[in-house]
Amino acid sequence: MSLTDLEELAGEIRELILTTVAKNGGHLAPSLGTVELTLALYSVFDFSKDRLIWDVGHQAYTHKILTGRRDTFHTLRTLGGITGFPKRAESPFDSFGVGHASTSISAALGFLIAAEIEKVNRKVIAVIGDGALTGGMAFEALNHAGQLKKNLLVILNDNEMSIDKNVGALSEYLSKIRLKPQFHRVKKEFEDFVKNIPFRDVGEKILLAANSVRAGVSAAVFPGAMFEAFGFTYLGPIDGHDIKGMKDVFSRVGIINAPVLIHVNTTKGKGYPPAETAPEKFHGVGKFDKATGLVIKKKSPPSYTEIFSQAVIDCATRDKKIVAITAAMPTGTGLKKFAEKFPRRFFDVGIAEEHAVTLAAGMAAGGLKPVVAIYSTFFQRAYDQILHDVCLQNLPVLLCLDRAGLVGEDGATHHGAFDLAYLRTIPNMNILAPKDENELRQMIFAAFEKNFPVAIRYPRGSGLGVEVKTNPEKISWGKAQFVEKNPSAEIAIFAVGTMVKFCVDAAKLLREINISADVINVRFVKPFDKELVKKSARAAKILVTCEEGTLTGGFGSAVAEFLADEKISTPLLRLGIKDEFIGQGTRAELLNMCGLTAEKIAQRILERLNEIIFGFLTDIR
Amino acid sequence: MSLTDLEELAGEIRELILTTVAKNGGHLAPSLGTVELTLALYSVFDFSKDRLIWDVGHQAYTHKILTGRRDTFHTLRTLGGITGFPKRAESPFDSFGVGHASTSISAALGFLIAAEIEKVNRKVIAVIGDGALTGGMAFEALNHAGQLKKNLLVILNDNEMSIDKNVGALSEYLSKIRLKPQFHRVKKEFEDFVKNIPFRDVGEKILLAANSVRAGVSAAVFPGAMFEAFGFTYLGPIDGHDIKGMKDVFSRVGIINAPVLIHVNTTKGKGYPPAETAPEKFHGVGKFDKATGLVIKKKSPPSYTEIFSQAVIDCATRDKKIVAITAAMPTGTGLKKFAEKFPRRFFDVGIAEEHAVTLAAGMAAGGLKPVVAIYSTFFQRAYDQILHDVCLQNLPVLLCLDRAGLVGEDGATHHGAFDLAYLRTIPNMNILAPKDENELRQMIFAAFEKNFPVAIRYPRGSGLGVEVKTNPEKISWGKAQFVEKNPSAEIAIFAVGTMVKFCVDAAKLLREINISADVINVRFVKPFDKELVKKSARAAKILVTCEEGTLTGGFGSAVAEFLADEKISTPLLRLGIKDEFIGQGTRAELLNMCGLTAEKIAQRILERLNEIIFGFLTDIR
Repeated sequence: MSLTDLEELAGEIRELILTTVAKNGGHLAPSLGTVELTLALYSVFDFSKDRLIWDVGHQAYTHKILTGRRDTFHTLRTLGGITGFPKRAESPFDSFGVGHASTSISAALGFLIAAEIEKVNRKVIAVIGDGALTGGMAFEALNHAGQLKKNLLVILNDNEMSIDKNVGALSEYLSKIRLKPQFHRVKKEFEDFVKNIPFRDVGEKILLAANSVRAGVSAAVFPGAMFEAFGFTYLGPIDGHDIKGMKDVFSRVGIINAPVLIHVNTTKGKGYPPAETAPEKFHGVGKFDKATGLVIKKKSPPSYTEIFSQAVIDCATRDKKIVAITAAMPTGTGLKKFAEKFPRRFFDVGIAEEHAVTLAAGMAAGGLKPVVAIYSTFFQRAYDQILHDVCLQNLPVLLCLDRAGLVGEDGATHHGAFDLAYLRTIPNMNILAPKDENELRQMIFAAFEKNFPVAIRYPRGSGLGVEVKTNPEKISWGKAQFVEKNPSAEIAIFAVGTMVKFCVDAAKLLREINISADVINVRFVKPFDKELVKKSARAAKILVTCEEGTLTGGFGSAVAEFLADEKISTPLLRLGIKDEFIGQGTRAELLNMCGLTAEKIAQRILERLNEIIFGFLTDIR
Repeated sequence: MSLTDLEELAGEIRELILTTVAKNGGHLAPSLGTVELTLALYSVFDFSKDRLIWDVGHQAYTHKILTGRRDTFHTLRTLGGITGFPKRAESPFDSFGVGHASTSISAALGFLIAAEIEKVNRKVIAVIGDGALTGGMAFEALNHAGQLKKNLLVILNDNEMSIDKNVGALSEYLSKIRLKPQFHRVKKEFEDFVKNIPFRDVGEKILLAANSVRAGVSAAVFPGAMFEAFGFTYLGPIDGHDIKGMKDVFSRVGIINAPVLIHVNTTKGKGYPPAETAPEKFHGVGKFDKATGLVIKKKSPPSYTEIFSQAVIDCATRDKKIVAITAAMPTGTGLKKFAEKFPRRFFDVGIAEEHAVTLAAGMAAGGLKPVVAIYSTFFQRAYDQILHDVCLQNLPVLLCLDRAGLVGEDGATHHGAFDLAYLRTIPNMNILAPKDENELRQMIFAAFEKNFPVAIRYPRGSGLGVEVKTNPEKISWGKAQFVEKNPSAEIAIFAVGTMVKFCVDAAKLLREINISADVINVRFVKPFDKELVKKSARAAKILVTCEEGTLTGGFGSAVAEFLADEKISTPLLRLGIKDEFIGQGTRAELLNMCGLTAEKIAQRILERLNEIIFGFLTDIR
């Protein structure tokens, strides 16, 4: 394809992305930023043979469109449609499934080693953003790749952003490189020049002088020093919207027999002015009006995130020891407002969940009361830090897990389906789940009063629209709460967080056929209200647990353990997410698929009750 | 204290460490390497006010001896004695508990921020080895610290070792710095010199020339470039056994208002020739003869680690697609032999568990069959990578979790007590536990035949001394196996891995009082043998599960879930580790504490049986 053709294609692709995302929602700004980069890569490399690995994968829409998914692209992020991230099952061109950050260099190195051992001649390219580069495992991979000296190509897609503005020393370092364009030639150009200067002649003193020029300047003068220290050859920065320029560099890389890092500057949201102006808003965006860039918002109650945000600010106003940490998500977690109000007590550590948690542990050991707000799925990265640094030392760190449960369109890599189960395995951990936004606020107030680790998990999206009480209400620690209580209930439903509402509705449906069910808001998944479970087990024909999380090790599992240990034989019906990965769809579609609607909950209870009443299979002995 | 006094004290401390570790076992080489460093730190800083955070903490014996634990130091690593790692509950000088690597910079930054917010004037110092620096979260912390520009002092304790020889590009980089001692002055010295050279006069061309000198040379010439890129002021390298030299540098650091990294060269095992010669052998060592340096070995059967090692070699000999990965533990995991036999198919990634797992996922996606061998406790670091990169893509990666269960003297930070529980939460994961070393070998053979994720967990130390069959025996996937089978057993004991032996002995004890118990070797914790559990539930009065792992979410929990789901009311007795952190002691002491001995298992079964027979509490309704 000629350059003109490529540029024309870029325009068409951009239009398709824009139209689709305006309709379906999605990662607009990252994908608009990589249109030319992707085209340049596909012009130079042969990805039927070579391998391309996108970090996070939210920038890979062009890649999807170019590899047989143009006609189905309109199904992006819908149930059964094209996924928002590369996925191996979807296309042979999606070499490696992604969603979480900082995995691409590790995976690419794996492919490269495999090619070498299998004696396949293959180039492997990882494309990683400057945001994802702050994740520790990216450095672990650089460190390994640099030593192996494999022919790895890493493309650093530098748009000065994580999801919000990127942070960290590395980000400052890259900015300095960008600011000194006169020095930024492709290295090869002046390597020849240098070969003619005998090293001795340069003179130790001059070199020492150069060394001691302040780091800021030297970053600009020696742009690649950091990457060269890792054994990479650094090239760049080059313009990530100049297809011709990129093609030139990409095609010359093959001659370098070492790992190479090409630093490419791109603009997030490129070509769509509203996204260029507000890339964080258009990072992952819902439906919007293409003409105006206005996000289409249904009128809805404040989100859990907003309630969290305000509650933490209110607590921090009273208590000067409260500090807040997030990992590249000040907007997503709602901590942006906190940052504005308490800039010196707010810490965005970049995409670095492990550091975020251990930093909090250090702060708590130093006398502060840190809250760490991260999405449930990304907290998985910090399992060991939660266990080893927070819980083993029983430190007062508050973990707030936003986007817990099914998140909808982002799909399998992003559901917060495992948090109850993995957090429950850790001694000293306290796990709370609010039934509504008011309870979230009250739990945050209660948690900051405690001198031990607490995790609160709450869902994506709007609250239920209940009144949010400004003055703190008492939350009895470890106690559940009746939401529906009947004098002679046959069923006791223990519902966790989001499921309380559904279970109340299920109980209504059961009432219509004269089955009486108590609904208990679990509130505390750990330690849970054992007394009430025991009491209910005594009174009811069936205990039911219902949670928006995996059934393997979750709350229902905790109750099953307890019943066994206490020698209680009351039948237990556990409702939740089966032991499998759930794909994408609207939250409603997915909840329905998982049997977590009022109707399906009622149905399951009814079935179980029938079995008990008619004696089917209640006891197989 | 005068320098002579300090040097004398160093000698005394070294002697105490040596005598104690020869008797109790422990981390000899790391702690001998930091005697002078610790003394210099304590000479300059006031740690009743300042804070000192040791990374990993295996080098902190001198610190313990200097802070009120000299007289009790002989109890090191024994039940109720001084712990082998800093522990907050043990001393106010142990600011932050450690055990796992790469946490110190994060924690130190937390302390520093706390001091600033609490308006306490306090220095905070992190001491991190070059090994621990390869862990990604150390970089996440450097990146954050460099941007915050807090007055953090990081001491890089460079002994060119992780536990084995250190690996990675960073390690090569540091070696290059060490090799050019003539350039290694404390930076301040020539900063003044440079101030007198107008920057313009240095000349762009010379700077460009300097830039393009190959990375290797520039690392030596600009030793701090990498750390300066992270916003740190770099000083060093300095001699870590020269107390006076270190004191001079440490006392001048206060004037620099920026994060500082001091590069200190130390010798692992310093002062004890056998440890200097073989630092990896004396990294963590059992009892040894002080005079000769010979480790005191009881004659015992081959260890699980040795069996693993040979099995992987044997599989890899047949199947060229098998590759092996470890994270700084080639000796500990037994992969050293594999590395010797298949150097191109072996990968030590350094202390980088996350990268290790995602690298394996990449290799598997690229067509290989990788095995990743890491200690159970350190696999916790890679929970998300196991979930998101391996299991979500259902890739054939074999995880071998050595040191699963209670590890003994290393204590709370090192027990592999959580693996069954956290791995079980992950869909697509297969979890195996061999009852003896022969079964471990057979499981490894079987696992490599599979095209999906498999984890095998096995304990520290010797096997049972059973015959290890060279030719593979068939392992029926997902099937348990009777070890003791009686025609009319009242009890069915499902024992996991190490517990099989104990349960067989417990069954013997029960038989003596005419109680008949079947013992079933679970083999597969996930997917477990549901059919057999069902069958046993039908036949037995009590089902028992027994595992060397947490009861919260572990195998017993899986059975409790299953019984509830299947509406089976057979009483279930779950034996394992309670929901708490277990301290140090011999493995036998700890197993006894946890009730995991034949006698205690039999006792618990007997109690439960009595309750059933006499109707106590079997059903509270």
